[in-house]
Amino acid sequence: MPDHPLIGLSLDPNAPTAMFAQIYDALRQRIVCGEIGAGRRLPPSRSFAEELGVSRTTVVTAYDQLIAEGFAEGRTGSGVYVSDIGTVEIAPAPQPRSVAETPALAQPSALRPFHPGHPDMRLFPHRQWGQCLARVARTDPQALAIQTDPFGDLLLRTAIADYLAEWRAMKVSPEQILITAGASDALEICVRTLAQPGDSVALENPGYRVLRALIQSLGLQTIWLDVDEHGAQLPTATPVPLMSVLTPSSQYPLGGAMPLARRRDFLAWSEHHGGWIVEDDYDSEFRYGGRPIPALSSFDNHGRTLYIGSFSKVFSDTLRLGFLVMPRHLIPNIGATLARFGSKASLIGQRPLGVFMQDGGFYRHIRRMRRIYAERRRVLIGLFRDHFIDERVQWRDHHSGMHLVVHLPSDCDDVEIAARATDAGLSCPALSTYCAGAHPRRGLLLGFCGFDAPALQDAMPKLARIVMDALNRIP
Amino acid sequence: MPDHPLIGLSLDPNAPTAMFAQIYDALRQRIVCGEIGAGRRLPPSRSFAEELGVSRTTVVTAYDQLIAEGFAEGRTGSGVYVSDIGTVEIAPAPQPRSVAETPALAQPSALRPFHPGHPDMRLFPHRQWGQCLARVARTDPQALAIQTDPFGDLLLRTAIADYLAEWRAMKVSPEQILITAGASDALEICVRTLAQPGDSVALENPGYRVLRALIQSLGLQTIWLDVDEHGAQLPTATPVPLMSVLTPSSQYPLGGAMPLARRRDFLAWSEHHGGWIVEDDYDSEFRYGGRPIPALSSFDNHGRTLYIGSFSKVFSDTLRLGFLVMPRHLIPNIGATLARFGSKASLIGQRPLGVFMQDGGFYRHIRRMRRIYAERRRVLIGLFRDHFIDERVQWRDHHSGMHLVVHLPSDCDDVEIAARATDAGLSCPALSTYCAGAHPRRGLLLGFCGFDAPALQDAMPKLARIVMDALNRIP
Repeated sequence: MPDHPLIGLSLDPNAPTAMFAQIYDALRQRIVCGEIGAGRRLPPSRSFAEELGVSRTTVVTAYDQLIAEGFAEGRTGSGVYVSDIGTVEIAPAPQPRSVAETPALAQPSALRPFHPGHPDMRLFPHRQWGQCLARVARTDPQALAIQTDPFGDLLLRTAIADYLAEWRAMKVSPEQILITAGASDALEICVRTLAQPGDSVALENPGYRVLRALIQSLGLQTIWLDVDEHGAQLPTATPVPLMSVLTPSSQYPLGGAMPLARRRDFLAWSEHHGGWIVEDDYDSEFRYGGRPIPALSSFDNHGRTLYIGSFSKVFSDTLRLGFLVMPRHLIPNIGATLARFGSKASLIGQRPLGVFMQDGGFYRHIRRMRRIYAERRRVLIGLFRDHFIDERVQWRDHHSGMHLVVHLPSDCDDVEIAARATDAGLSCPALSTYCAGAHPRRGLLLGFCGFDAPALQDAMPKLARIVMDALNRIP
Repeated sequence: MPDHPLIGLSLDPNAPTAMFAQIYDALRQRIVCGEIGAGRRLPPSRSFAEELGVSRTTVVTAYDQLIAEGFAEGRTGSGVYVSDIGTVEIAPAPQPRSVAETPALAQPSALRPFHPGHPDMRLFPHRQWGQCLARVARTDPQALAIQTDPFGDLLLRTAIADYLAEWRAMKVSPEQILITAGASDALEICVRTLAQPGDSVALENPGYRVLRALIQSLGLQTIWLDVDEHGAQLPTATPVPLMSVLTPSSQYPLGGAMPLARRRDFLAWSEHHGGWIVEDDYDSEFRYGGRPIPALSSFDNHGRTLYIGSFSKVFSDTLRLGFLVMPRHLIPNIGATLARFGSKASLIGQRPLGVFMQDGGFYRHIRRMRRIYAERRRVLIGLFRDHFIDERVQWRDHHSGMHLVVHLPSDCDDVEIAARATDAGLSCPALSTYCAGAHPRRGLLLGFCGFDAPALQDAMPKLARIVMDALNRIP
């Protein structure tokens, strides 16, 4: 008896679903229902491909996606094994703590359906993280209070360097990593180090609103980069921007990944003009299909890119920790900025996070969340297809991210639609508020990470009614 | 037998030392050597004053100072008792952690003598704080990761409101308190909420260098406020500044406290002009003599002041937590700034800090540090008097703060002197680098908090040699 299950699949080469997706779907279903148990080895890709009459690449792609979503694990040299996915437990929502003699203030409130950009903190591994923290606090309390390096805890920086090597194909040393108070602090440090008031910075349009506010508040000129389905396009107008802030892994908020060729074009362009590229890689862990593209920074041989990562999306949005990967030659400049403006990154969570990463708990959590988010995304897309049968409502599947963008006709008022959704207890920001210029794109952002199937099932008909009402009122 | 010790003091009304200081010195000496043991009650002020032939106020002032420095405790309605001061232990310096497979990076280094502005983290209550943190992490891990209020943990904000009521005579509700990533984050939030690029902000000259950099980087105009021994003076020139950032408790870096009358003048002025006052109360806990003056904000009946506190000086400079006290009518505006620029304050330390404050461990730590810093300050001043017998070198005793300012002649080059001190392994920044304008004050900042008597005894002769060499070279 082979050590892998015999799997009889019936594939349809004429179906609209790609072959790899059919294989993936069939395997996922059997794993979820327990038919192929945890620890079982999946058939070797070569023999399975022969058995199914498909190319080996097709099987490998299906396996990659299962691995990416945490249903399976690749073990070097010995094939692919089904993961222990357990049951998807939803922890009870946090109860408000009773605080003695405290006046009634704002109570904790669950996110409203479709609110984008936040992890589901009900699924946070509170107990494991608390134990990790407690262990460090008892055995090594000085590590939580005494900072030996202004750039942050060395153990955490080492864990991040390992993580970048494995997940993002980046070869960096811990000394190139600065721990920051989240991604926006990292962006602020980049801008304060490299730009002077009056300099111009290229931002994606549409793009991250906090970044736009930040650039304006620092007295810098903004140059807008057009975005297509492959992310930002090269700047064409003058003046040549000193710095371009890009989201190549998953354009924010539209969601496209920048292909390799355009990444190389941006690098060549920045080398030619002596400009800087800031790569904001805010949620690259959440890719639900296909192979991730290595970070733009991993191709940079001339020290023109600064890479920003954040733990706010993949781990906890309240820890307020992110990091900046600097070219070696900029380390002294970044150090001077820290000295000039002060550091804002708290030390207390740094060592525990590094330990959590090295112990593997961090990666188990990411894999679990990716699996859950993929499922929620599938539910959202299914519901969306059921409720929006109108060619005026479009969307594109980028197989990544924490929200879907629904595109609406250019003559509709998406801000008004978003306001009506708010009145109905939903939260789906208008796409135009992420845009600059006189002719913004219209649409809505639908977050799916924070909401289970019943919540989405309850919310989608309400949203459909509001949107279709609005569209039908357009003359 | 009375429950308080009979203390025979011989006072000298003709001595250069004030009567209250003679009483204080004598009592402190007897407490430190154990002659008056922990828990003993000091004589009632009225009878003790009669016995000594001084006014009751003189005795009360001496007692206040003993209480302020933690040698004694006042218990409401039942007199003043000697504290258990234990022995002043210096914990061993932290050892660098071995991190597997990590390239050698910067090693932890002790602060160099006279480096100002940092608490002595070797004396941090690592074990107690670690236990507090571990307890919260085990019993209430969700409190470390789930934020129920964008303004911060409610228990911490309640503990801060209690603290402000008791220590700073401020009556504020927890909902007026925003937890920030330290004082500079709080300042940035104030400025981004209240000012637009092009507005003018009044800053003290000399003043906090990070603040100056911040105001410039945000495209604001700076108006300089002259500083005398009582702190900042009212703005006189036009344009009238939109906002004045003041350090009334202890002017930074010169150290004077602003008298009540001038505080009221500033308030009246801001009401008249519709301006704002930001009160930066960065180290008011470190007052070694005299009565603390209530916060300027405590006199504000018109909602024109924002009060900034920080835990960086009194507790830990790596926790990166501070707070902002807002007038009620500004709460929505501050909330909008948080939404626009994102929050930088980490949640993870907030609940544990609130618990540490409510349990009293925080206050025991502050009292202990105040006692130790007072002793180190006394050592510094003694050494200074021994080594600088030259009328060109001046200083003023403000009985507060974490450093002494040594004033030097206006024709000396304090930057050059500071550089030579750096070469000699010391760290005493030049006063002129805190100044704006063409005619800066000259001098040096000498921090004392991080250094025990042997370290100061070793460093002072080196500093004296460098300073006197430089002064003697002035033609």
